[in-house]
Amino acid sequence: MHYNSNDIEQLEQRFRTSLINSLAGFKPANLIGTKSQNGETNLAIFNSVMHIGANPALMGLIMRPATVERHTYENMLETGYFTINNVTEAIYKQAHQTSARYDKSQSEFNACELTEEYLEDFHAPYVAESSLKIGLKLEHDYEIPLNNTRLIIGSVQHIHLPENCLLQDGTINHEQLNSVAVNGLYAYHKSSFLEQLAYAKP
Amino acid sequence: MHYNSNDIEQLEQRFRTSLINSLAGFKPANLIGTKSQNGETNLAIFNSVMHIGANPALMGLIMRPATVERHTYENMLETGYFTINNVTEAIYKQAHQTSARYDKSQSEFNACELTEEYLEDFHAPYVAESSLKIGLKLEHDYEIPLNNTRLIIGSVQHIHLPENCLLQDGTINHEQLNSVAVNGLYAYHKSSFLEQLAYAKP
Repeated sequence: MHYNSNDIEQLEQRFRTSLINSLAGFKPANLIGTKSQNGETNLAIFNSVMHIGANPALMGLIMRPATVERHTYENMLETGYFTINNVTEAIYKQAHQTSARYDKSQSEFNACELTEEYLEDFHAPYVAESSLKIGLKLEHDYEIPLNNTRLIIGSVQHIHLPENCLLQDGTINHEQLNSVAVNGLYAYHKSSFLEQLAYAKP
Repeated sequence: MHYNSNDIEQLEQRFRTSLINSLAGFKPANLIGTKSQNGETNLAIFNSVMHIGANPALMGLIMRPATVERHTYENMLETGYFTINNVTEAIYKQAHQTSARYDKSQSEFNACELTEEYLEDFHAPYVAESSLKIGLKLEHDYEIPLNNTRLIIGSVQHIHLPENCLLQDGTINHEQLNSVAVNGLYAYHKSSFLEQLAYAKP
């Protein structure tokens, strides 16, 4: 099968959205936790969390502020802090449900039956049910001129994870953490370990 | 276990690199194909390919130009075109090997035993062994000031994939394509389907 750019433009809108969202392959599933200055909490699933750099430790995500992600964005700007929490096999249905359009006054923690957790006096809420909890400080907010989405980057302030889930080289074992991956927007997958390779040399 | 920002700064460098690279969860594995104006081809594995938008259809990746990814970057700038090819279970070892530091005169296609393929007169080479092949035009190149990595964005010109691998809603079934995911920098995983959820409503 072959689609060229004209074919893609002429696809039915929802079909195109699903197709293009699935081009990159398996994506990580994460919940972003925020809290407004008034104390309203917000939780939203993102499939676009990425590694930006290890030293300094930076993570990024792609944000569409005009959509359901707007409350998350407002809270980030207002307070400067957010959390990234992994989506596990036990909570992927609740996590997916956070993508519904709730009012700002209604916390997705309550609406989707997930539990706020506060650790080390960090302002933003973690997800108690997640097995990997990362606290970040907002460092950079760049509007991509091509389509007005934003690249949001935070510096890693805290990492919380269970004992004994690191591989010898420092890699977090996401299979042991029961983290899921997303294919496109709606299809959730767990993983099956193939092999740990070494640093490649010519 | 808890690491704060001071703990992270004081970690041994390779341990920190592995830890921070694995924070986001399972990442897609893709091969980026390019060709210089002189006809030298280059192939490099990236774990940072992401969805930027569906209309127009845009994909991005994070680039570290000072490293082995430099030849890919030079070819992109010189010609304006590149390909994204999925890494499957059959080729993940060869794909990983493209991360070694080869000279620009030595093509990773030859060094890593992968096959160049040219489709629809597109300038950049595809990977014949991949089951999903995407041709892109360079549209945007943004240097992230925090650490001088770059966000590279291309518009989707061509999508090549086998018949019968789309879900009904348009999502590409990456499990059927045998696409792999990466945990951190070195650990390869295949997927195991859990469930296809619906568009979420409150």
